Amino acid sequence: MVVDAEEGTLLKFAPFQSRVDEGFWHRLSSLKLNKLRLDESPMPITGFFAPCSHKQVPSRLTLLAESLPSEDQKQSSSLPATLNQGNRNRCPVPGILYNTNTLEGFNAIDRVSLLETEAKKIWDDIHNGKVEESSSVLLRFMVISFAELKKWSFCYWFAFPALMLDPAARVVSLRSASQCLSLEQAESLSSACNEWRNTSSTTDLGFSLIGEASISVSPEWKTRDCTPKAVGWEVNKGNAKPNFISLAKAMDPTSLAISSADLNLKLMKWRAVPDLNLSILSATRCLILGAGTLGCEVARLLMAWGFRKITMLDSGKVAISNPLRQSLYTLDDCGEFKAIAAVRSLNRIFPAVEAEGIVMAIPMPGHPVPEQEEQSVLEDCKRLHDLVECHDVIFLLTDTRESRWLPTLLCSSANKIAITAALGFESFVVMRHGAGPLSMIKDSGALSSLSAEMHNLSLTNRMGKQRLGCYFCNDVVAPVDSTANRTLDQQCTVALPGLASITSGYAVKLLAGILQDRLGIFADAEFANSANNPSSENCLGILPHQIRGSLSQMSMITLVGHASSSCTGCSSTVILEYQKRGLDFVLQAINTPMYLEDRTGLTELKKSADSFNLDWEVGTDDAEDDCVEI
Amino acid sequence: MVVDAEEGTLLKFAPFQSRVDEGFWHRLSSLKLNKLRLDESPMPITGFFAPCSHKQVPSRLTLLAESLPSEDQKQSSSLPATLNQGNRNRCPVPGILYNTNTLEGFNAIDRVSLLETEAKKIWDDIHNGKVEESSSVLLRFMVISFAELKKWSFCYWFAFPALMLDPAARVVSLRSASQCLSLEQAESLSSACNEWRNTSSTTDLGFSLIGEASISVSPEWKTRDCTPKAVGWEVNKGNAKPNFISLAKAMDPTSLAISSADLNLKLMKWRAVPDLNLSILSATRCLILGAGTLGCEVARLLMAWGFRKITMLDSGKVAISNPLRQSLYTLDDCGEFKAIAAVRSLNRIFPAVEAEGIVMAIPMPGHPVPEQEEQSVLEDCKRLHDLVECHDVIFLLTDTRESRWLPTLLCSSANKIAITAALGFESFVVMRHGAGPLSMIKDSGALSSLSAEMHNLSLTNRMGKQRLGCYFCNDVVAPVDSTANRTLDQQCTVALPGLASITSGYAVKLLAGILQDRLGIFADAEFANSANNPSSENCLGILPHQIRGSLSQMSMITLVGHASSSCTGCSSTVILEYQKRGLDFVLQAINTPMYLEDRTGLTELKKSADSFNLDWEVGTDDAEDDCVEI
Repeated sequence: MVVDAEEGTLLKFAPFQSRVDEGFWHRLSSLKLNKLRLDESPMPITGFFAPCSHKQVPSRLTLLAESLPSEDQKQSSSLPATLNQGNRNRCPVPGILYNTNTLEGFNAIDRVSLLETEAKKIWDDIHNGKVEESSSVLLRFMVISFAELKKWSFCYWFAFPALMLDPAARVVSLRSASQCLSLEQAESLSSACNEWRNTSSTTDLGFSLIGEASISVSPEWKTRDCTPKAVGWEVNKGNAKPNFISLAKAMDPTSLAISSADLNLKLMKWRAVPDLNLSILSATRCLILGAGTLGCEVARLLMAWGFRKITMLDSGKVAISNPLRQSLYTLDDCGEFKAIAAVRSLNRIFPAVEAEGIVMAIPMPGHPVPEQEEQSVLEDCKRLHDLVECHDVIFLLTDTRESRWLPTLLCSSANKIAITAALGFESFVVMRHGAGPLSMIKDSGALSSLSAEMHNLSLTNRMGKQRLGCYFCNDVVAPVDSTANRTLDQQCTVALPGLASITSGYAVKLLAGILQDRLGIFADAEFANSANNPSSENCLGILPHQIRGSLSQMSMITLVGHASSSCTGCSSTVILEYQKRGLDFVLQAINTPMYLEDRTGLTELKKSADSFNLDWEVGTDDAEDDCVEI
Repeated sequence: MVVDAEEGTLLKFAPFQSRVDEGFWHRLSSLKLNKLRLDESPMPITGFFAPCSHKQVPSRLTLLAESLPSEDQKQSSSLPATLNQGNRNRCPVPGILYNTNTLEGFNAIDRVSLLETEAKKIWDDIHNGKVEESSSVLLRFMVISFAELKKWSFCYWFAFPALMLDPAARVVSLRSASQCLSLEQAESLSSACNEWRNTSSTTDLGFSLIGEASISVSPEWKTRDCTPKAVGWEVNKGNAKPNFISLAKAMDPTSLAISSADLNLKLMKWRAVPDLNLSILSATRCLILGAGTLGCEVARLLMAWGFRKITMLDSGKVAISNPLRQSLYTLDDCGEFKAIAAVRSLNRIFPAVEAEGIVMAIPMPGHPVPEQEEQSVLEDCKRLHDLVECHDVIFLLTDTRESRWLPTLLCSSANKIAITAALGFESFVVMRHGAGPLSMIKDSGALSSLSAEMHNLSLTNRMGKQRLGCYFCNDVVAPVDSTANRTLDQQCTVALPGLASITSGYAVKLLAGILQDRLGIFADAEFANSANNPSSENCLGILPHQIRGSLSQMSMITLVGHASSSCTGCSSTVILEYQKRGLDFVLQAINTPMYLEDRTGLTELKKSADSFNLDWEVGTDDAEDDCVEI
């Protein structure tokens, strides 16, 4: 301890000056966000000081990243062993951090009583002899703080509690250690200190003083219950007030954007959704088919949910009417490929996104391929197959029914999560496709020995429950060219504005729900307002199969449609055929949609169409069929 | 008619060459979009030709804007009188336009039979003597077309039906008119023609030929039923094929953007919502309070709906975490005032928007004003008052409850449409405020003589029905500072992503519904899925008072809350007080929210709080109370 003798005979302690390394704030932010959350308990921390080496330079007490426990580390009041030893400029001191949840909480701290509490600990340690084991307990310190994580700004205040002796201690003598000790004594002390510090030459007797002070011990001090008064809240630029620091300006914009995005997401875990698994969202690779009104909004919302890997596929260019409804484009983008412009826009919103744009058209049944284009269409099929394979989730957001057929088939074959969103003029549907028909067969080599049982098996999933349907399960015809003969007002842009915003909101939420579900793609269909939902299992609420809404009726329902054995998109018949014949099968289906109907039994079904009922299943478990598709 | 004598003695008609002025396509686009819509009926049009003035130059038949009826004009087959006379280079000819709804329809036209039909008319006119009244009926022409309005491209094909004589007509003699006629005859003919044309010097006999042809009349021609064969589909660059023209490149980007935006909106009127009044939307002045997640999306959707006058008010700056959720900003905007950045973004999306940004904070109850800031706060109040006055609709989209109080009061006082949208973590509310309590008093001068009846009157609207409530009608306390003591995760950014997209979609649709309603702000509350909605009255569907939804439950309900006589935002007590004391009243309310409670009777009410029931009213007409506010 450094003693200032300039005031004549009064003994005064030279105040510490606090210094906080940026690393401390970064680690505190991370701890608060990811681990402490709303916990305001006092936290043991470690400060580091160096002995004063010059009269004019105040002694520093420094907080570093390692002053705080690491995130995986259990909180512990004992100092890590490695911090305890060796560096004379990094002598560890125990401290306590009071980090509040709000600025109001910070301001409301009763600093006087806090200081008293801390002084009492010093007093106790003097009484119980702990100070003789480790003089560092005399240097106890406190920090109160509030971390405004959104702005990377911090408000904090140090206290170094010092007991106020009354009457004050007085200096009796103060001399250089070398004057005071004999050479033998000095060498012996120096070597003892160095040994104690476990290094060589840290104690330089030329800089050391040895003093003697007189302390009048008042009678009541004999009892530990009567603690002397204490002072010690640090003076900041001459005033008793807290420090403020903002790190935002020192950070580069991209890492600031990343940390801000993380913050908004992680705050959800503090109270609202503690079980939310964010890392599964950021790791999921999303393929968005169609970069129109729905595709733009879905991509934006994926980023807001914390998805970071986004591929956008579209063959079209930005038209002058697009920016008003397609939220990733401005007029400057007109004439450019949508997939490219969309990705550029995503990067402007969040530079850490891993986004890719693919300019290609999706081959469609009912749009026969001229012979000279056959090779390029087959290449597109192959490319789409590969894209589906290397993504985890596929959003089907194109503007025709038939363009969703091949992606549906590929997702069903590869057992990938597929989310369909589609708009009518004032109505929408959002649905997740069920698992693929072969998803319960773990050994794909077994495919060759598939028996007739296949047909029945393929309607049930791994858990023996009925498989959920895909976008085509309710159709009684194969998809055909739906673009022919559509008048201008029957084209997709003529939907009520806002419908796509609503639809996209539900579509991305549906995906988030699937990814949070233990069963993932195999999760059961749940219904809104149903008593027997196991919704407590999913931290994001219920996980329906389909959501249908009407903007003009301001209504919305959840419903379920099970897989059809005659489905052109996901029945075992078409999936097996695809896996056997590959692109040949796809080409045949594209050129001759009737082939799909023959193959799946729809042709037969149509012959007995009288017996067929279309029905909506709303919020019940016993309804057995399907619903009219938009 | 020009005769080509070069083929020896065979009489051949020199073909017309068609020419279409851009003005024709602009007027056709406008007619199709606004008036004809899906109507494909043949339309009489007028072509204009000039006599050939040189052998090498083909005769032109030109279509101009005035070839088509104007939009207000009733379709009529008779030529406008003004077109009929006077200009030898603009001789009018009757024609018919077959404009199809689709390209497929265009390609499917039976051109052979169409030509026969037209030839039959000529044949009939020859037989019934009309040709002698007006030789122009011999020049009948046809155009088939398809207008791809989205791309400003047009596909068209002219036909000039010519009867095929068999055996062919032969030239007997062909001489210059001046050679053929005596000077006296020539002068007499010229003067007769000039008189007929009603101008001077249009017939130049030096350019005129007089010929004689021999036509063998076959016996069956005597009957009108047997029409000679006809030819006449125009040859386009040597081939029998249609013409294509695109005007997009010739148009400036802004007018192209405007016309594209109009197109998307007007197409809704073709079939889906014929009664939609678009001009009321484009004329409505919208004030958006709060340019955050909701404000950005609402502004975008307003533009998509065809609103063109948008003012955005916000006091904040774009933070680095904003662009991920606030769809008008990119990272480049960080640090800039939101209101300014948002308006710039709106202009990039649609340059014809009339958008203004206002940087100002909204004074709030419970946030007392220090004396030195009083003047500037009062100026803000005055400014907000003026803004409300000069707008038709106010969106309340700020992130605290108390910041919505003053706008609610001002809207209620001025009887302006107010739309509130607010988010919880996973839930939302969208509501339209009811009409103001004084809205049935037409003469504002009557205010001074208001009696005790006022209180009762103010709960009913002009139609004697109960007034709908505002955002504060269900509160039993005055709004206070809600920002204090909120931990980071309790701040507004911690809402499920997508919730704002959904909420904004419903909020803007709600406004569109109010504006389409005959009763506007006085329209009754309707409910989803209710049998007794007079929903046929509103072309956009039902018009609820409030919509509340849960994203985790994937559910949504419509409900109603009536005006409360103790409301701090819209009761006659506060409105009258405001109209009497103006800004003094506002300042008192801001500094002392308790004053509002005393004044409105909430203080009394709280004393008898036991008798108070909070209840949800869902889809019924008889429920009599209100709902818990988000």
